[in-house]
Amino acid sequence: MTQEPVALAAAFASFAELWSPRIVTVVNDYDVRIAKVEGEHVWHVHDHTDEFFLVVEGELHIALREAGGERTVVLPAGSVFTVPRGTEHKPSAPVRTAILLLEPTGTSTVGDRHDEVPDHVDATTGHALT
Amino acid sequence: MTQEPVALAAAFASFAELWSPRIVTVVNDYDVRIAKVEGEHVWHVHDHTDEFFLVVEGELHIALREAGGERTVVLPAGSVFTVPRGTEHKPSAPVRTAILLLEPTGTSTVGDRHDEVPDHVDATTGHALT
Repeated sequence: MTQEPVALAAAFASFAELWSPRIVTVVNDYDVRIAKVEGEHVWHVHDHTDEFFLVVEGELHIALREAGGERTVVLPAGSVFTVPRGTEHKPSAPVRTAILLLEPTGTSTVGDRHDEVPDHVDATTGHALT
Repeated sequence: MTQEPVALAAAFASFAELWSPRIVTVVNDYDVRIAKVEGEHVWHVHDHTDEFFLVVEGELHIALREAGGERTVVLPAGSVFTVPRGTEHKPSAPVRTAILLLEPTGTSTVGDRHDEVPDHVDATTGHALT
Protein backbone atom coordinates (compact mmCIF):
# COMPACT_ATOMS: atom_id res chain seq x y z
CA MET A 1 0.00 0.00 0.00
CA THR A 2 1.43 3.37 -0.97
CA GLN A 3 1.07 5.95 1.74
CA GLU A 4 0.43 9.59 0.96
CA PRO A 5 0.75 12.60 3.24
CA VAL A 6 -2.45 13.74 4.95
CA ALA A 7 -3.23 17.46 5.20
CA LEU A 8 -4.77 17.96 8.61
CA ALA A 9 -6.96 20.84 7.40
CA ALA A 10 -8.58 18.60 4.79
CA ALA A 11 -8.90 15.77 7.30
CA PHE A 12 -10.64 18.05 9.80
CA ALA A 13 -12.92 19.34 7.04
CA SER A 14 -14.04 15.79 6.20
CA PHE A 15 -16.21 15.33 9.31
CA ALA A 16 -18.37 17.38 11.64
CA GLU A 17 -18.99 15.22 14.70
CA LEU A 18 -17.66 16.44 18.03
CA TRP A 19 -15.72 14.20 20.46
CA SER A 20 -15.50 11.53 17.76
CA PRO A 21 -11.87 10.90 16.76
CA ARG A 22 -10.72 9.97 13.25
CA ILE A 23 -7.55 7.95 12.71
CA VAL A 24 -5.25 9.84 10.34
CA THR A 25 -2.29 7.47 10.41
CA VAL A 26 -0.95 4.48 12.29
CA VAL A 27 2.57 4.34 13.76
CA ASN A 28 3.47 0.78 14.75
CA ASP A 29 0.67 -0.12 17.17
CA TYR A 30 -0.30 3.47 17.90
CA ASP A 31 -3.00 5.62 16.30
CA VAL A 32 -2.62 9.28 15.48
CA ARG A 33 -6.17 10.56 15.78
CA ILE A 34 -7.79 13.96 15.27
CA ALA A 35 -10.97 15.27 16.84
CA LYS A 36 -13.15 18.33 16.88
CA VAL A 37 -14.24 19.15 20.39
CA GLU A 38 -16.32 21.71 22.26
CA GLY A 39 -17.99 21.59 25.65
CA GLU A 40 -17.26 18.82 28.13
CA HIS A 41 -16.04 15.28 27.69
CA VAL A 42 -16.39 12.86 30.60
CA TRP A 43 -14.21 11.91 33.56
CA HIS A 44 -12.34 8.75 32.62
CA VAL A 45 -9.08 6.96 33.10
CA HIS A 46 -6.76 4.88 30.93
CA ASP A 47 -5.25 2.38 33.34
CA HIS A 48 -2.52 1.14 31.03
CA THR A 49 -1.54 3.98 28.74
CA ASP A 50 -0.50 7.60 28.65
CA GLU A 51 -2.44 9.84 26.27
CA PHE A 52 -0.90 12.63 24.20
CA PHE A 53 -2.75 15.80 23.16
CA LEU A 54 -1.68 18.47 20.67
CA VAL A 55 -3.98 21.45 20.17
CA VAL A 56 -4.14 22.44 16.50
CA GLU A 57 -6.72 25.20 16.90
CA GLY A 58 -8.78 26.60 19.77
CA GLU A 59 -8.07 25.83 23.42
CA LEU A 60 -8.24 22.58 25.30
CA HIS A 61 -8.67 22.27 29.05
CA ILE A 62 -7.86 19.01 30.78
CA ALA A 63 -9.06 18.55 34.35
CA LEU A 64 -6.84 16.12 36.24
CA ARG A 65 -7.37 14.24 39.51
CA GLU A 66 -3.85 13.75 40.83
CA ALA A 67 -2.47 12.55 44.15
CA GLY A 68 -2.14 16.19 45.23
CA GLY A 69 -5.70 17.11 44.30
CA GLU A 70 -7.59 18.31 41.27
CA ARG A 71 -6.24 20.86 38.79
CA THR A 72 -6.91 21.89 35.22
CA VAL A 73 -4.22 22.40 32.62
CA VAL A 74 -4.95 24.83 29.79
CA LEU A 75 -3.55 24.13 26.32
CA PRO A 76 -3.70 27.00 23.85
CA ALA A 77 -3.26 26.23 20.15
CA GLY A 78 0.23 24.92 19.46
CA SER A 79 0.75 23.27 22.82
CA VAL A 80 1.09 19.66 23.89
CA PHE A 81 0.45 17.64 27.03
CA THR A 82 0.62 14.01 28.05
CA VAL A 83 -1.89 12.66 30.56
CA PRO A 84 -0.10 9.94 32.54
CA ARG A 85 -1.66 6.49 32.65
CA GLY A 86 -3.89 5.95 35.65
CA THR A 87 -4.76 9.64 36.00
CA GLU A 88 -8.47 10.44 35.93
CA HIS A 89 -9.03 13.27 33.49
CA LYS A 90 -11.79 15.20 31.77
CA PRO A 91 -11.07 17.20 28.62
CA SER A 92 -13.21 20.22 27.79
CA ALA A 93 -13.08 23.11 25.37
CA PRO A 94 -14.61 26.57 25.84
CA VAL A 95 -14.66 27.13 22.07
CA ARG A 96 -14.62 24.91 18.98
CA THR A 97 -11.21 23.23 19.15
CA ALA A 98 -9.21 20.90 16.92
CA ILE A 99 -6.89 18.39 18.57
CA LEU A 100 -4.48 15.65 17.58
CA LEU A 101 -4.16 12.61 19.86
CA LEU A 102 -1.72 9.78 20.13
CA GLU A 103 -2.53 6.52 21.87
CA PRO A 104 -2.24 2.79 21.36
CA THR A 105 -4.53 1.34 18.70
CA GLY A 106 -7.68 0.08 20.40
CA THR A 107 -7.67 2.69 23.15
CA SER A 108 -11.23 3.76 23.98
CA THR A 109 -12.13 7.45 24.10
CA VAL A 110 -13.75 6.86 27.48
CA GLY A 111 -10.95 4.80 28.95
CA ASP A 112 -11.16 1.71 31.11
CA ARG A 113 -13.31 3.37 33.78
CA HIS A 114 -15.54 6.38 33.34
CA ASP A 115 -18.54 8.33 34.53
CA GLU A 116 -21.80 7.85 32.68
CA VAL A 117 -21.14 8.71 29.05
CA PRO A 118 -23.34 11.57 27.84
CA ASP A 119 -25.01 11.36 24.43
CA HIS A 120 -22.67 13.90 22.86
CA VAL A 121 -19.57 11.80 23.59
CA ASP A 122 -18.70 9.02 21.15
CA ALA A 123 -17.40 5.94 22.97
CA THR A 124 -15.10 4.58 20.27
CA THR A 125 -11.64 3.34 19.47
CA GLY A 126 -11.53 5.82 16.57
CA HIS A 127 -13.07 5.94 13.12
CA ALA A 128 -11.38 5.73 9.74
CA LEU A 129 -11.06 8.91 7.73
CA THR A 130 -13.39 8.77 4.75
CA MET B 1 6.38 14.85 39.02
CA THR B 2 3.78 17.38 37.93
CA GLN B 3 3.54 17.73 34.19
CA GLU B 4 2.82 21.06 32.55
CA PRO B 5 1.77 21.75 28.96
CA VAL B 6 4.57 22.65 26.55
CA ALA B 7 4.06 25.46 24.04
CA LEU B 8 5.73 24.29 20.85
CA ALA B 9 6.65 27.85 19.81
CA ALA B 10 8.61 28.33 23.04
CA ALA B 11 10.16 24.89 22.72
CA PHE B 12 11.31 25.64 19.16
CA ALA B 13 12.68 29.02 20.30
CA SER B 14 14.83 27.32 22.96
CA PHE B 15 17.37 25.86 20.52
CA ALA B 16 18.97 26.69 17.19
CA GLU B 17 20.65 23.50 15.99
CA LEU B 18 19.37 21.91 12.77
CA TRP B 19 18.62 18.19 12.44
CA SER B 20 18.99 17.79 16.20
CA PRO B 21 15.72 16.71 17.79
CA ARG B 22 14.55 17.75 21.25
CA ILE B 23 12.21 15.54 23.28
CA VAL B 24 9.14 17.54 24.29
CA THR B 25 7.20 14.77 26.02
CA VAL B 26 7.19 11.02 26.48
CA VAL B 27 4.12 8.83 25.81
CA ASN B 28 4.61 5.38 27.27
CA ASP B 29 7.84 4.21 25.58
CA TYR B 30 7.59 6.72 22.72
CA ASP B 31 9.20 10.15 22.37
CA VAL B 32 7.49 13.16 20.88
CA ARG B 33 10.40 15.12 19.45
CA ILE B 34 10.68 18.43 17.63
CA ALA B 35 13.39 19.52 15.22
CA LYS B 36 14.39 22.46 13.08
CA VAL B 37 15.56 21.30 9.68
CA GLU B 38 16.85 22.77 6.43
CA GLY B 39 18.83 21.20 3.61
CA GLU B 40 19.38 17.46 3.40
CA HIS B 41 19.41 14.75 6.03
CA VAL B 42 20.92 11.37 5.14
CA TRP B 43 19.55 8.17 3.61
CA HIS B 44 18.77 5.81 6.48
CA VAL B 45 16.38 3.10 7.55
CA HIS B 46 14.69 2.11 10.80
CA ASP B 47 14.41 -1.66 10.58
CA HIS B 48 12.02 -2.09 13.49
CA THR B 49 9.86 1.00 13.70
CA ASP B 50 7.64 3.31 11.72
CA GLU B 51 8.42 7.03 12.02
CA PHE B 52 5.78 9.77 12.17
CA PHE B 53 6.30 13.31 10.88
CA LEU B 54 4.10 16.37 11.37
CA VAL B 55 5.16 19.61 9.71
CA VAL B 56 4.55 22.59 11.99
CA GLU B 57 6.06 25.23 9.71
CA GLY B 58 7.84 25.22 6.35
CA GLU B 59 7.87 22.23 4.02
CA LEU B 60 9.38 18.80 4.45
CA HIS B 61 10.31 16.48 1.63
CA ILE B 62 10.88 12.80 2.30
CA ALA B 63 12.59 10.74 -0.38
CA LEU B 64 11.57 7.08 -0.14
CA ARG B 65 13.08 3.95 -1.67
CA GLU B 66 10.14 1.60 -2.02
CA ALA B 67 9.63 -1.72 -3.76
CA GLY B 68 8.21 0.14 -6.75
CA GLY B 69 11.11 2.58 -6.98
CA GLU B 70 12.11 5.92 -5.54
CA ARG B 71 9.70 8.79 -4.94
CA THR B 72 9.54 11.91 -2.82
CA VAL B 73 6.54 12.92 -0.74
CA VAL B 74 6.06 16.62 -0.05
CA LEU B 75 4.58 17.71 3.27
CA PRO B 76 3.46 21.33 3.50
CA ALA B 77 2.87 22.84 6.94
CA GLY B 78 -0.02 21.12 8.68
CA SER B 79 0.44 17.73 7.09
CA VAL B 80 1.49 14.36 8.44
CA PHE B 81 3.15 11.24 7.10
CA THR B 82 4.35 7.92 8.49
CA VAL B 83 7.44 6.30 7.01
CA PRO B 84 6.94 2.53 7.28
CA ARG B 85 9.59 0.50 9.07
CA GLY B 86 12.21 -0.93 6.75
CA THR B 87 11.81 1.84 4.16
CA GLU B 88 14.98 3.73 3.30
CA HIS B 89 14.26 7.43 3.46
CA LYS B 90 15.98 10.80 3.34
CA PRO B 91 14.23 13.90 4.71
CA SER B 92 15.11 17.30 3.31
CA ALA B 93 13.71 20.80 3.51
CA PRO B 94 14.03 23.55 0.89
CA VAL B 95 13.43 26.23 3.53
CA ARG B 96 13.77 26.46 7.30
CA THR B 97 11.19 23.98 8.59
CA ALA B 98 9.85 22.95 11.98
CA ILE B 99 8.74 19.35 12.45
CA LEU B 100 7.31 17.13 15.17
CA LEU B 101 8.31 13.47 15.22
CA LEU B 102 7.03 10.41 17.00
CA GLU B 103 9.10 7.29 17.48
CA PRO B 104 10.05 4.80 20.18
CA THR B 105 12.36 6.13 22.87
CA GLY B 106 15.92 5.26 21.91
CA THR B 107 15.36 5.50 18.16
CA SER B 108 18.41 6.99 16.43
CA THR B 109 18.01 9.91 14.02
CA VAL B 110 20.13 8.00 11.52
CA GLY B 111 18.39 4.67 11.92
CA ASP B 112 19.89 1.20 12.03
CA ARG B 113 21.65 1.54 8.66
CA HIS B 114 22.64 4.76 6.94
CA ASP B 115 24.92 6.47 4.46
CA GLU B 116 27.92 8.34 5.85
CA VAL B 117 26.56 10.90 8.29
CA PRO B 118 27.51 14.46 7.26
CA ASP B 119 28.72 16.91 9.91
CA HIS B 120 25.49 18.91 9.89
CA VAL B 121 23.40 15.88 10.93
CA ASP B 122 23.25 15.04 14.64
CA ALA B 123 23.28 11.27 15.19
CA THR B 124 21.29 11.13 18.42
CA THR B 125 18.39 9.52 20.20
CA GLY B 126 17.11 13.02 21.02
CA HIS B 127 18.09 15.71 23.51
CA ALA B 128 16.20 17.00 26.51
CA LEU B 129 14.58 20.41 26.24
CA THR B 130 16.44 22.87 28.40
